[in-house]
Amino acid sequence: MPFRAPVEEYNFLLSNVVNLSQVNATGRFSDAGPDMVTAILSEAGRMCDDVLAPLQRPGDLHPARLENGVVRTSPGFDDGFRAIAEGGWIGMAANPEYGGMGLPLTLAHAVNEMMSAACMSLQLAPLMSQGQIEALEHHASDEIKALYLPKLISGEWTGTMNLTEPQAGSAVGALRSKAEDNGDGTYSITGQKIYISWGDNDFAENVCHLVLARIPGAPAGTKGISLFLVPKFLPDENGKPGVANGVKVVSLEHKMGLHGSPTCVMSYENAKGWMVGPENGGMAAMFTMMNNARLGVGGQGIGVAEGAYQHALSYALDRKQGRSMEDGGTGTILDHADVRRMLMHMKADTFAARAIGLSCAVAIDMAEATGDDWWTARAALLTPVAKAFGTDIGNEVAAIGIQVHGGMGFVEETGAAQYARDVRVTTIYEGTNGIQAMDLVARKMMDQGDAAFRLFDEIEEAAELSRCKLPDLTESVWQATEELRETTEWLIDRNHRVRFAGAVPYLRAFARVLGGHLHLQAALVEQGGPREKLARFYIRRLLPEHQSLLVQARSGDFDVFGLSPEEFSA
Amino acid sequence: MPFRAPVEEYNFLLSNVVNLSQVNATGRFSDAGPDMVTAILSEAGRMCDDVLAPLQRPGDLHPARLENGVVRTSPGFDDGFRAIAEGGWIGMAANPEYGGMGLPLTLAHAVNEMMSAACMSLQLAPLMSQGQIEALEHHASDEIKALYLPKLISGEWTGTMNLTEPQAGSAVGALRSKAEDNGDGTYSITGQKIYISWGDNDFAENVCHLVLARIPGAPAGTKGISLFLVPKFLPDENGKPGVANGVKVVSLEHKMGLHGSPTCVMSYENAKGWMVGPENGGMAAMFTMMNNARLGVGGQGIGVAEGAYQHALSYALDRKQGRSMEDGGTGTILDHADVRRMLMHMKADTFAARAIGLSCAVAIDMAEATGDDWWTARAALLTPVAKAFGTDIGNEVAAIGIQVHGGMGFVEETGAAQYARDVRVTTIYEGTNGIQAMDLVARKMMDQGDAAFRLFDEIEEAAELSRCKLPDLTESVWQATEELRETTEWLIDRNHRVRFAGAVPYLRAFARVLGGHLHLQAALVEQGGPREKLARFYIRRLLPEHQSLLVQARSGDFDVFGLSPEEFSA
Repeated sequence: MPFRAPVEEYNFLLSNVVNLSQVNATGRFSDAGPDMVTAILSEAGRMCDDVLAPLQRPGDLHPARLENGVVRTSPGFDDGFRAIAEGGWIGMAANPEYGGMGLPLTLAHAVNEMMSAACMSLQLAPLMSQGQIEALEHHASDEIKALYLPKLISGEWTGTMNLTEPQAGSAVGALRSKAEDNGDGTYSITGQKIYISWGDNDFAENVCHLVLARIPGAPAGTKGISLFLVPKFLPDENGKPGVANGVKVVSLEHKMGLHGSPTCVMSYENAKGWMVGPENGGMAAMFTMMNNARLGVGGQGIGVAEGAYQHALSYALDRKQGRSMEDGGTGTILDHADVRRMLMHMKADTFAARAIGLSCAVAIDMAEATGDDWWTARAALLTPVAKAFGTDIGNEVAAIGIQVHGGMGFVEETGAAQYARDVRVTTIYEGTNGIQAMDLVARKMMDQGDAAFRLFDEIEEAAELSRCKLPDLTESVWQATEELRETTEWLIDRNHRVRFAGAVPYLRAFARVLGGHLHLQAALVEQGGPREKLARFYIRRLLPEHQSLLVQARSGDFDVFGLSPEEFSA
Repeated sequence: MPFRAPVEEYNFLLSNVVNLSQVNATGRFSDAGPDMVTAILSEAGRMCDDVLAPLQRPGDLHPARLENGVVRTSPGFDDGFRAIAEGGWIGMAANPEYGGMGLPLTLAHAVNEMMSAACMSLQLAPLMSQGQIEALEHHASDEIKALYLPKLISGEWTGTMNLTEPQAGSAVGALRSKAEDNGDGTYSITGQKIYISWGDNDFAENVCHLVLARIPGAPAGTKGISLFLVPKFLPDENGKPGVANGVKVVSLEHKMGLHGSPTCVMSYENAKGWMVGPENGGMAAMFTMMNNARLGVGGQGIGVAEGAYQHALSYALDRKQGRSMEDGGTGTILDHADVRRMLMHMKADTFAARAIGLSCAVAIDMAEATGDDWWTARAALLTPVAKAFGTDIGNEVAAIGIQVHGGMGFVEETGAAQYARDVRVTTIYEGTNGIQAMDLVARKMMDQGDAAFRLFDEIEEAAELSRCKLPDLTESVWQATEELRETTEWLIDRNHRVRFAGAVPYLRAFARVLGGHLHLQAALVEQGGPREKLARFYIRRLLPEHQSLLVQARSGDFDVFGLSPEEFSA
């Protein structure tokens, strides 16, 4: 079976589980009524099925390459990008003033997820542009907005983000690229950046880099970093790409997966750039971009989980090895309990991660539409959870997908392995999942857990309503929420080192419980139907993991700091 | 830091945890005293460090390839194989009558594990020969033994096993290759086999295939399968490779990893073969080979875990990004609690899996030395656990290893990704881990759980002895064992479909508990030292997972068979 974007699943979730209607009700997004949502998702789904999914394998087999300093993209990627651009999918959530559709981020997130399910390596290109669009909308001068936003939204130009340097990975504050004031409103940027996704391509007229750099004399660490927009070609007086800027691609990384996406080492030598946001305020501006990019990367994990699930299911339905049909079987490996278990696991976890990602997107939309601190805090709380859980599930589901294929899973021709190789990066980039977990237990709990406790209250209130309908599932979710609450209270009273030693298991337990709540809401809509069965599988089999995770979360720092560096080697 | 075989770790485990001395005490292996064990492990370790580890990357970068029907192996693999052969490492456990060393399998297993840590793709070649040697020792005629065993043990010739056909994967009974009696004691074999590891090479004079095929008129299914020895070149009257046999390599698979190991599609056309074991008794003969091969594959998982751990630790010790040394830090990412947590997790799980594998090997040696049914049952019980847990941990540890590397983990140059790609196959071949789990809950519990309960009794007896020394850890292990016992009792009263629906989580819970016991034994030897710290990490953080696994194991079949095939797609 070829890939089919799960349009119905998004419709169901948006209508019944994450309540997109509350976004419409704000007035800010009143255009996005149910019919329009369905039409948009269907249209995007068709493009994913017909245009993007066929590019998945060619991107892997014919990686992007560097020829005389120019990136040549994988076969068909130019047409694929053009289809995304022409459909308006880059600027779905962007400001209509500059050509965007002005739709809720929730919808854009759903479409991004579908696109990554079809072909993640190409989808990463518009995702990078979207991040840049958002950063410019929030922080750039009107002049820059007027020049760049329409081009980025239309896909004539593309955008990238340049943070990492060889000596400055997760510790962004250690970066050394410098920006010297030219005295004419522009700056000269010099330095080297690594891991620049889609740092160049051959399908856009121009590539616009958002680059973090230091102005001489700026404070050390993250407080002395500014953000600059540095185009590959300097726009001429008509806004057309003119002379080449001092930026070049030095090399492409040879990666485990995502071969269709060129990961560039970039060199800047007196490249002309324009400051975005205030001097030394680069980190704040970059965070605007990174927060939604984090949700976007979570969506990539979920998208790949979808692709891997469909791929494995298709194999299972086709692979003859089971009981005969006369004997009550299907004649395929779907007759085997363990194959069923694997597919249920894939489907149930993909649902949970997807519902969490959409919940986060709704919170971001509500925060934007209402300006309410409560929604802002909710969005901030859910972002690291959506990113880390979505990408962990992407990896786990892709790994199970290989296992369903048996020997065929290890052979590249079937494509099962590619999902696992491609999605591997998602737990690393945009802040490793360890960083996400630390963000959750530290920065996102500077409110003494207020945002978290409000969420737990909400889950328990919902549980009170479902108790008479699905008592056993409700009781499990309610009980798990209480346990999560207790551990949260415990964590908040601890110092950062103790919190960090339990951060990763805590985040996962958080996601497990939230996933249980969202599954329960889905089950209530379709009692006795497939959604209740899936929820039952999740709540009975997967949710209980939260207990051992919470034990880990409360284990303290003593056991992780017990060994000396020498004892690790012994 | 370059790879260093963990020789001390094996010495410690053999002396203190799995009690190799009981094997020596049987008299069957009385040569293998502690000094000799140390000398052997050190010698093997040196070869792994100096000869095999440097072949790890070249094997990945320059895959084995097929040229005019002949396999050309990766650069250096011929010398590497020669070093393994000349060290006597192929025939460590083989019969001295034919040139083997006659040492305990436990030692051979430890050496195999080290070799796979250094270079799994090459180590698979001698592992295949070892399986064949064992099958021939048990089932071949004296004539075949006299001709083939010395050559296989010396490494002049290599061996393979040929089970799988395109339509017959885990369901071996569906195979179609046929063997016609030539009336002269030989058979003509015709058919196609897939996934044949090291199906050919350019460093051995001859390649000997053990092939499952059907004699015309044989019963359907597994009861009608016989085993044949089919050499690439027919031995002449002097036992030298003579004319080419009717077997050829059709193609090599393009795999996710393990590029140095040629995975062949083999075609047999009236190839001359000799029956091994009785007519229609091929499955039994093949199982002799497969049981130990299963432990061997478990060892590959554990070996790769070791390699990935050392690699990640080396990176962590080197990567500057932490507190300054004046500030009590190391100045590296080892200062971060989450990096510590990852490395502790890798180390603790590698230890547990290794100790389980060695326990299984000791049981096999004891069964062979004493002929005692009790030991035979123990060996049979632990084999699927060692295989599945060892390979699952191999995958998980390799995945964490990538994560420790951050962005560098996704880039192939660092080598972290290779561990994950190489080890991926181990949960699939020699019986998928799902098959292992079904074996555990069905075939290995045909004794009504007797072998399992005896093991649990033993763990609890040991716990009684440690209770006064390490009360908290002991209590956790004792309690977990009780819970495992209860679920085992529950499972035994259930039908196969129910058992199978919980088999994979059950096996993992079983391994988790056994790992806790073995960690506890290690901690007792070094109270207050690094081994207690590691055991504490395992028992407090990783062991509790058994609870949610046991919940899954008892979940029954209803939830996995809830969805119809159509509902899976919806």
